[in-house]
Amino acid sequence: MRIGELSKRTGVPVPTIKYYLREGLLPGGELTSHNQAQYGEKHLHRLKLVRAMTEVGKLSVAATREVLGAVDEPSTGLHEVLGVAQAAVTPHVTAGDTESWEQAEALVSELVVRRGWTVKPENPARQALTQLVVTFRDLGQEDLLEVLDDYATAAEQLSKAELGVIGRREGVDSKVEGAVLGTVLGDALIGAMRRLAQSDASHRIFEAPDV
Amino acid sequence: MRIGELSKRTGVPVPTIKYYLREGLLPGGELTSHNQAQYGEKHLHRLKLVRAMTEVGKLSVAATREVLGAVDEPSTGLHEVLGVAQAAVTPHVTAGDTESWEQAEALVSELVVRRGWTVKPENPARQALTQLVVTFRDLGQEDLLEVLDDYATAAEQLSKAELGVIGRREGVDSKVEGAVLGTVLGDALIGAMRRLAQSDASHRIFEAPDV
Repeated sequence: MRIGELSKRTGVPVPTIKYYLREGLLPGGELTSHNQAQYGEKHLHRLKLVRAMTEVGKLSVAATREVLGAVDEPSTGLHEVLGVAQAAVTPHVTAGDTESWEQAEALVSELVVRRGWTVKPENPARQALTQLVVTFRDLGQEDLLEVLDDYATAAEQLSKAELGVIGRREGVDSKVEGAVLGTVLGDALIGAMRRLAQSDASHRIFEAPDV
Repeated sequence: MRIGELSKRTGVPVPTIKYYLREGLLPGGELTSHNQAQYGEKHLHRLKLVRAMTEVGKLSVAATREVLGAVDEPSTGLHEVLGVAQAAVTPHVTAGDTESWEQAEALVSELVVRRGWTVKPENPARQALTQLVVTFRDLGQEDLLEVLDDYATAAEQLSKAELGVIGRREGVDSKVEGAVLGTVLGDALIGAMRRLAQSDASHRIFEAPDV
């Protein structure tokens, strides 16, 4: 199909598709004349993937390129691809050098040990979590840290469920794509679910007629 | 304290504090001369709150102002404040008019009924979730939708734990602030936890020596 058809079937404007081509997010089509190219089903699928990551997952073009680069690298194992995808979607937090930072870092390390998790020391999620602990404490919201283990339990259940589905798939490509999408879109998914569940809980707790 | 001291105690640069003052995120200090103002502990706390929302919670200045406006409105009930905070941190998705959008919308409505949730039809999280369902299906990842109820269960547990802590607090202001911070920072918190739990699960499943 021509680029116009690719645009029509995905709803992505032609200039945006050209931008993705220039940025290397989408491989070039097969040239049929000096300024015309043909695209196939693979391009269509890849374009949908790019759009899911950038528009639904809110990844930057640079982060999307990083993730797709890992997906395309056949020698990379699933664990490594997931690591790259995770790093691309985890905010990079600079470690602090204050006493409160060190205390929060210790709390995060204790949590990781308590949960029995194997997590590399350089995993950026450690620092993201440390920053959150520092922030809650700094705002005098220390009691909210009581829910850390509830969050950890929920996170374990979600990972188990997701990786369970992916483990039942055939073929490495399909597993890799599922794992990456679970990482990138999973944030938006749990965010939407939390809002729905929270609306309901807040309605019941704070608006119940007998309170 | 003077603005310089406010900056020193929070690490927020003076020009940024002035910007927050202009944007109405931070109330003005008490004028002691025609170009000097004094700030108190309330300003200090509010500035920390603004920074937590914008830098850690990644809210825009407009969204932060919206949330803080609801927090400051004493006549607003906790359920309403939470609704405003939620709306400010939920991506606004335009409803589609395709058949696949309608099918996904029906799936979301069924889920809400199945969970027994009371959620207003205009809650923006419904459309955010609908968009995710459409995206997974469009990418041929329908099997990942099997985890929707696992996500719903996790979301219920998190809401219950958070609102439990907040319910034990004294005073409406402190409850409101906790509920809002739980909403805004909770996304980052579950995101960081998911990455840690997922790293561990992926390590065990895909890198175990006997596989």
